[in-house]
Amino acid sequence: MTSSPKKRIALLGSTGSIGRQTLDVVAANPEHFEVEVLTAQNSAEELIRQAKQFKPNAVVIVNEEQYTTVKQALANEPIKVFAGEQALGSVVQMESVDLVVTALVGYAGLKPTIKAIEAGKSIALANKETLVVAGALITQLAREHRVNILPVDSEHSAIFQCLAGEIHNPIEKIILTASGGPFRGKTRADLAQVTKAQALKHPNWSMGAKITIDSATLMNKGLEVIEARWLFGVQAAQIEVLVHPQSIIHSLVQFEDGSIKAQLGLPDMKLPIQYALAYPQRLKNSFPRFDFARYPSLTFEKPDTETFRNLALAFEALERGGNMPCVLNAANEVAVAEFLNDRLSFLGISEVVEQCLGKLDYIREPALEDYVETDKMTRIRAKELIR
Amino acid sequence: MTSSPKKRIALLGSTGSIGRQTLDVVAANPEHFEVEVLTAQNSAEELIRQAKQFKPNAVVIVNEEQYTTVKQALANEPIKVFAGEQALGSVVQMESVDLVVTALVGYAGLKPTIKAIEAGKSIALANKETLVVAGALITQLAREHRVNILPVDSEHSAIFQCLAGEIHNPIEKIILTASGGPFRGKTRADLAQVTKAQALKHPNWSMGAKITIDSATLMNKGLEVIEARWLFGVQAAQIEVLVHPQSIIHSLVQFEDGSIKAQLGLPDMKLPIQYALAYPQRLKNSFPRFDFARYPSLTFEKPDTETFRNLALAFEALERGGNMPCVLNAANEVAVAEFLNDRLSFLGISEVVEQCLGKLDYIREPALEDYVETDKMTRIRAKELIR
Repeated sequence: MTSSPKKRIALLGSTGSIGRQTLDVVAANPEHFEVEVLTAQNSAEELIRQAKQFKPNAVVIVNEEQYTTVKQALANEPIKVFAGEQALGSVVQMESVDLVVTALVGYAGLKPTIKAIEAGKSIALANKETLVVAGALITQLAREHRVNILPVDSEHSAIFQCLAGEIHNPIEKIILTASGGPFRGKTRADLAQVTKAQALKHPNWSMGAKITIDSATLMNKGLEVIEARWLFGVQAAQIEVLVHPQSIIHSLVQFEDGSIKAQLGLPDMKLPIQYALAYPQRLKNSFPRFDFARYPSLTFEKPDTETFRNLALAFEALERGGNMPCVLNAANEVAVAEFLNDRLSFLGISEVVEQCLGKLDYIREPALEDYVETDKMTRIRAKELIR
Repeated sequence: MTSSPKKRIALLGSTGSIGRQTLDVVAANPEHFEVEVLTAQNSAEELIRQAKQFKPNAVVIVNEEQYTTVKQALANEPIKVFAGEQALGSVVQMESVDLVVTALVGYAGLKPTIKAIEAGKSIALANKETLVVAGALITQLAREHRVNILPVDSEHSAIFQCLAGEIHNPIEKIILTASGGPFRGKTRADLAQVTKAQALKHPNWSMGAKITIDSATLMNKGLEVIEARWLFGVQAAQIEVLVHPQSIIHSLVQFEDGSIKAQLGLPDMKLPIQYALAYPQRLKNSFPRFDFARYPSLTFEKPDTETFRNLALAFEALERGGNMPCVLNAANEVAVAEFLNDRLSFLGISEVVEQCLGKLDYIREPALEDYVETDKMTRIRAKELIR
């Protein structure tokens, strides 16, 4: 192994599930990575603890009310402390940053990602909403600034791994696998009375609350379909969703000769995180290995888009294009938050999304301001609908 | 698609199963390939028909008794006709040949492959026995002459496809899949009375007689283990055999980060043949596509090496090294031929192989002459044992 300079990482959303696992990967590979920036929305305590351990150059606490807490706790450390949303856009542009890991939840990832791309930083994208909301804009910017967008989602990482060495070979089809979530096989009648606690129990993956609910509604897969469209330059008709309850085959690519490549492994986000961080190198590790003896059968079925309307709505938004995926995402973010606050039923989530898709104005080629406006108007409309 | 010059192909063993499918691929892609040489062991009629269709520069009929037949039939064509084993070594060295496809059966592939490598030709290797018998010698030669050895076996093609773009990433493990053959799940008692007709009925693949019997005894997988050791530079302990009755996952590679890549598709040799011919390009085709809807479950189990002794014997020969894989192969070739002639029982095949492995002299670093001598002596010993 030749020694290469360490990659200096800005980690946006360091206290969430992906953020913490990213720091585990960094801690296990101190010869490869070092932490330059950590940011958190609200979790001041965890951010302080992480900062003391990883000694970044700077931290950002987005919730300005927590600034004094963080500043005082780190008073004896040579660490710059910033607060507020705007600071995210500045720290990702720091000269000393090589790679920006965007592990923020939801729409909040959009603006700092744009700033990072504009500064020519590589992006490890764990925030799928960024591409869902503004895929055309983001991928155009990335081309202009010759920036790599490295997927962190396990499905997109699988496809990205399968595309290694295949750059000149056109993709015929992408097959995104889906566990089916905790309610696979249920009918709409079954789902009418679903509780928050039930929806938060994912069979295979341990993740944050927003993405766990999105997995239960299949919206997560819908967002991934839109993300895949932009990451891999394919059309909606080239993307297929396949339910695979064991979550071992993380996704597949079919090439124009009919050959299919797949990436497999235990459901563990550390592997795709490490792959994005170390790309194009693979780092030896001691993660538990997959063993076929424990999985004598891998099974596959079609997704039930009658029951799980969100997946069909995501395809519809992608096919309509323009600002419709942005509407889809904003409506869903509001609906999931309201579901988590016990103010909306499980089936209500897709009803809110569907109604918003029907009611917001269509913009064919949105600029950034249009996305911002669409997001804002959709949230207002979604909240009205729920009230 | 940029237009590149056509690859000019010497096809050794053009009348066998792989040979005929290779010609199907060539015929479907006249803008990419042209046939420079065709060779056959005995099948004069088929060779003549192929020569008239593909207009090669030269043909070889190995069985010299058929020379006149072929010569006269092609008298009005501008095609050179040669006969005899030696001619194979000459035609592969022709200036006009770019790629040699070795689709010969068994040990016969060794010498022409060496000649082709010495002349700097790329090799599409469908003759696994070449690497089984003399893997150290062949891979050393290929390195010296900077020759690519492109696997045609579906399992090795799968691994080779998964290794694209991963050249700097060490392999942790190779998982070779095996259908398990027609007798999967049987006991030794069940196999005592097995007939030739039963052994020739492979559940998934349509192949020549020798390889079909090898599939029924699992020797085919054993030979593939040895082939993989040489093609991919791994040790015996890094190779695992996994029974997968549907033959959809053609094989898998696990890297040092624990990530596993697999190649999948319907069981159809045309795809790996086309991949080897067109490498590194993938050519669009109309081969039937794999559909998960028709395979809702893919299953996996450990191979039964108590019943199918040949697989254990192949690992043993590989671990002992030297000329032992050559002994294994020669004993097996004789035993399978005798089984096909109704002079040996199905279980007798592995008994002959095991006894030969115990009785032939061990040579640690064989030269080509040692392989030739080992092959000869083993065949004599195997025939004595059967008589």
